[in-house]
Amino acid sequence: MSSITAFENVLPEIIDEILTEISETNLPDNGKEWIKQALTHNCMGGKLNRGLSVLNSYQILTAQKELSAEEFKRAAVLGWLVELLQAFFLVADDIMDASHTRRGQPCWYRMPDVGMVAINDAFIIESTIYMLLKKYFKSEKYYVDLVELFHEITLFTELGQLVDLITAPEDNVDLSKFSLDKHTYIVTYKTAYYSFYLPVVLALHMAGKASKTNLSEAKRVLIPIGVYFQVQDDYLDLYGDPKITGKIGTDIQDNKCGWLINVALELANAEDRAVLDANYGRKDPKCEQKVKDVYTKLDIKSKYHDYEESVANDIRNQIAATDESEGLKKEVFSVFFDKIYKRQK
Amino acid sequence: MSSITAFENVLPEIIDEILTEISETNLPDNGKEWIKQALTHNCMGGKLNRGLSVLNSYQILTAQKELSAEEFKRAAVLGWLVELLQAFFLVADDIMDASHTRRGQPCWYRMPDVGMVAINDAFIIESTIYMLLKKYFKSEKYYVDLVELFHEITLFTELGQLVDLITAPEDNVDLSKFSLDKHTYIVTYKTAYYSFYLPVVLALHMAGKASKTNLSEAKRVLIPIGVYFQVQDDYLDLYGDPKITGKIGTDIQDNKCGWLINVALELANAEDRAVLDANYGRKDPKCEQKVKDVYTKLDIKSKYHDYEESVANDIRNQIAATDESEGLKKEVFSVFFDKIYKRQK
Repeated sequence: MSSITAFENVLPEIIDEILTEISETNLPDNGKEWIKQALTHNCMGGKLNRGLSVLNSYQILTAQKELSAEEFKRAAVLGWLVELLQAFFLVADDIMDASHTRRGQPCWYRMPDVGMVAINDAFIIESTIYMLLKKYFKSEKYYVDLVELFHEITLFTELGQLVDLITAPEDNVDLSKFSLDKHTYIVTYKTAYYSFYLPVVLALHMAGKASKTNLSEAKRVLIPIGVYFQVQDDYLDLYGDPKITGKIGTDIQDNKCGWLINVALELANAEDRAVLDANYGRKDPKCEQKVKDVYTKLDIKSKYHDYEESVANDIRNQIAATDESEGLKKEVFSVFFDKIYKRQK
Repeated sequence: MSSITAFENVLPEIIDEILTEISETNLPDNGKEWIKQALTHNCMGGKLNRGLSVLNSYQILTAQKELSAEEFKRAAVLGWLVELLQAFFLVADDIMDASHTRRGQPCWYRMPDVGMVAINDAFIIESTIYMLLKKYFKSEKYYVDLVELFHEITLFTELGQLVDLITAPEDNVDLSKFSLDKHTYIVTYKTAYYSFYLPVVLALHMAGKASKTNLSEAKRVLIPIGVYFQVQDDYLDLYGDPKITGKIGTDIQDNKCGWLINVALELANAEDRAVLDANYGRKDPKCEQKVKDVYTKLDIKSKYHDYEESVANDIRNQIAATDESEGLKKEVFSVFFDKIYKRQK
């Protein structure tokens, strides 16, 4: 059984445990069925990278190829907590972005009879995180640290989402609100913390290695990796091969505050800027083409390759400089980095 | 300075503290301004009964008429946490119910430029609860209890809201889903826990009196009081004097799973039932009138008065039976009850 299958198999167990716990309130059957559907629909079908990262990091930190059944379950639960956190955000993000599909299925709020009830479902999904933390980790001395970690990373993600939403609303294009600084804020808080930092820190806690030094090392290395990952995403949205990425990007038409537009804004002369102002964020392929033409003129593509080389070099240096004196392993970071360096999807 | 004014004056302090804390992420100024508006809009203008209950209960439990400035601040912070929890729910409830106004102002999501960003604002409001708990209570031995209490009551409220939403959707009337049991579930979990039990338990913790016995006594007495409060609400929606309540009820047209309809369903013969099925939950005053006529025929009004007398009697007995051996005071409960018995608004 591959570790991804083993990890996936934990989800139905967790859902059963959640339902058992919730049933203590005498929740009527229609409520139980609803929550089961909401959890299943929103936790399945993804790549599970974040959840698996907890398991992988834990195995590296404890130098174990095989985990005992109990250890595996607990590490997998922590992994699923990251996936639940993401599910909570995605249910809400899809409503806020008026999205149609997610992971090849209709978004949860677009499912029959769901609609805005999905907001409350997002809340319930978030609540299950703390229910499971209590069930599995209450007796650990790092229990409060885990709870506070989820609180902190949840708030960070919400702050990143807020800045993204108010800087780049789809119905009111104003490029003067954009900047590379805002872009860095958005990707750091909206993505890097929960996707890269959180899984490793969870593994550090469970491995008994969450010393102050190790936490600060994790932040120093993983946040730049997460930012690099999101910049790649922005690049692939426009310049990726749809045959490989599986999607055709819409960032220009959607008024996204992405890396490409922010670099373009830094390099644009008055004439370029006028073209960007007039055409960015419009739901019109002709406008989109004019923005692409400015990107070509400014050679944003090679700016990206320069950025990638420089940032990859920095990250390699950061990884090499990892302080391993308190049990951290460089490999935790390099595994992440190797998976994403020059990724094409 | 009245205690309500003193309590209100703590809000701007708390908002400043939240903004200071959040600023450590280097949140851009537009983000800070947004959060300040979201907190102010959604925490002000209410009756503050829940927040004030924490203060009042604490004063009764510690037998103090005047609190020291520090003690007052900490009890007021706990009170505001209940108000923040409510603000988090109301922002979302108003979207789910497509409401227009709240506390005499437009709902937050209907304010200019807000829209669905309000969902993320609701999340941020929730996150501030744990930020403040950590700031003010981290060093207390009951800190984890407070955090877990908020988690539990949050989930309870979400479960009550879920059952309410799926039992009584506005666009799909099906009275066979209704029952007095479901009604009791909804009002217990959606309202009674966070409005009645939570404030008193917070006060018990801060007073150092949150023993197992006292917590169980609080639940035994306060949940029935909360249920009674909500049944009153349902009654006043239809039979209250709009000059006193300040509003004209819409429960029948909104397909609410309230007390009146559930009692009517229990008493209805086949003919009455057909009238209810055909007319409840319709956005039409004529249909509403037909439902009211059935209520009149079944004499629901006097059923309510019977209920009120019987339940008030039960609650008085429950209060009288309070175990005060571990420092609890009957007065904590009777103050609540006296405020709402036979209330007309």
